[in-house]
Amino acid sequence: AKLMSENRIKGVIGMGGGGGTYIALTAMQEIPLGVPKLCLSTMTGKDLSGLMGRKDITLMPTIVDMAGLNSISRMLIKQAAVCICAMSNVTDVNATAVAGRIAISMFGNTSACVDKCIELLNGKGYEVFPFHANGIGGRTMESLIREAYFDAVLDITTTELADDLCGGICSAGPDRLDAAAELGIPQVVVPGCLDMVNFGRCETVPRHYKGRDFYSWSPEVTLMRTNKEENKILGERLVQKINNSSAPVAIVLPTKGISQIDAEGGVFYHPEIDKVLFDTIKEHSKEKINVIEVDAHINDEKFSTKLVTVLLEMMKIEGRG
Amino acid sequence: AKLMSENRIKGVIGMGGGGGTYIALTAMQEIPLGVPKLCLSTMTGKDLSGLMGRKDITLMPTIVDMAGLNSISRMLIKQAAVCICAMSNVTDVNATAVAGRIAISMFGNTSACVDKCIELLNGKGYEVFPFHANGIGGRTMESLIREAYFDAVLDITTTELADDLCGGICSAGPDRLDAAAELGIPQVVVPGCLDMVNFGRCETVPRHYKGRDFYSWSPEVTLMRTNKEENKILGERLVQKINNSSAPVAIVLPTKGISQIDAEGGVFYHPEIDKVLFDTIKEHSKEKINVIEVDAHINDEKFSTKLVTVLLEMMKIEGRG
Repeated sequence: AKLMSENRIKGVIGMGGGGGTYIALTAMQEIPLGVPKLCLSTMTGKDLSGLMGRKDITLMPTIVDMAGLNSISRMLIKQAAVCICAMSNVTDVNATAVAGRIAISMFGNTSACVDKCIELLNGKGYEVFPFHANGIGGRTMESLIREAYFDAVLDITTTELADDLCGGICSAGPDRLDAAAELGIPQVVVPGCLDMVNFGRCETVPRHYKGRDFYSWSPEVTLMRTNKEENKILGERLVQKINNSSAPVAIVLPTKGISQIDAEGGVFYHPEIDKVLFDTIKEHSKEKINVIEVDAHINDEKFSTKLVTVLLEMMKIEGRG
Repeated sequence: AKLMSENRIKGVIGMGGGGGTYIALTAMQEIPLGVPKLCLSTMTGKDLSGLMGRKDITLMPTIVDMAGLNSISRMLIKQAAVCICAMSNVTDVNATAVAGRIAISMFGNTSACVDKCIELLNGKGYEVFPFHANGIGGRTMESLIREAYFDAVLDITTTELADDLCGGICSAGPDRLDAAAELGIPQVVVPGCLDMVNFGRCETVPRHYKGRDFYSWSPEVTLMRTNKEENKILGERLVQKINNSSAPVAIVLPTKGISQIDAEGGVFYHPEIDKVLFDTIKEHSKEKINVIEVDAHINDEKFSTKLVTVLLEMMKIEGRG
């Protein structure tokens, strides 16, 4: 960290077996995005996703075990060496002037909304960074918010809170939605896809959810409709996390449904459950939080246009736009 | 495959989300070792080990989701591009003349034996390629044998057969030990570590194994002693796989124990179980298979010396030494 702050690191390379890989990948977590990181490892046959996911770490297998050198290990070590050198010499591609950088959270079920927001924001000269709200995406976004990478956050898909509450497979941990409030970054928050919890194949759904509403999004993904009790808790949690932000915060509620399948005629369409969520959010929000109801579905153009308008106004006030 | 055979591929690069990553990594399975392969993927937060393990594929995360370009994706794409170019221009490091290339299978429990064999073989000018017998290691070795990468195989650690039989976590699939026999590569086979099956943390051991002998190798690895019935099946399977090899095959049996912990005073020391294994092997081996008993423990120098002597004799006969 000291060397990093002195700007003395152009790239980081590690190599190891079981222990060495763990040490190298853990150390690389401290190195900011954009500084190349490469790890040559005997462990790529194991699940290293927990150590990889949030950082731009390049992973290369050793193929053979670490026991003396041979032509395979020599070749791969040489390839790794030229890789890290070449990556370290990549000139900065961030140089293009942009109005500001905006993080955005997405899901298949909100992508119409997100796509429109990106189009509108790009048109205004903003650079937009989409994160897939599948747990790792949310964690990565939070981690980059903490690195002060963004001028504002358009958190359209806060679904990871539902997975965290109900034990779904896309939880981003209990700290999701904390970073922007803690660092005072302006944000517009939408309870997008809080109607659903993600599980894997249907046989993996915990038994205690027997009798609930399910929808098979794909053979590998089973969605569970959240109920009234859960939406009350989710509304409270969502508001609690952003109530104390030092920066402007707006919550925008799409009254005609919060996901693609929570639309009139859709399999998860239960306006009476969404009403519990919206009422809880309105009830618990501090006065300074701007809670806006829009008479539209989350994927309607009317809704995304409103989101962008609200966000850009907030950024203008903050001098970040 | 056609382009590859015409020597028109210097490197392969892929980029994708869920589907694209799968397509890219699957296509890369067809490209031989040493031709650089790089995949830029949104999926590094998921377990890709099944698609990565056997090949020298370099994996790089996209950090942001695939939805338009931004400074993060542009930077990482540029880094990926310079990487594959640099790797493709690595000059061949295989050029050093060696007497021959030998694959060897290892485990913590056989490493004294393997280390000594490597030392002896290196001393004779052979290049030795160690593979960790943890499932992926065995699969990788088999796959490289099929690429005709080796002149001979010294298969000291055939333990993956036990994991395949008993549902352990280090199975290399049912095809382990098939490649050398099918391709007619000379091999010396040892039933190393067939006394053990690998499981994860002790609470993950299947219930039907209750009452068996266990040893906690590390908090993450629980070993189960194989019993007489299993050793009878393992002996039969081992022999069956190599009985029809067109190349010379020797099976060498260490009568004083087949793993570090199957030594006098060791926690898995049960000579009466090993005897079932050895007797089954002797009974089922075809006459042309050279079955040799050595009155030593697998990690004794006497044993490794014998292995190397037998292997080099076989290679000389085959004109591969």
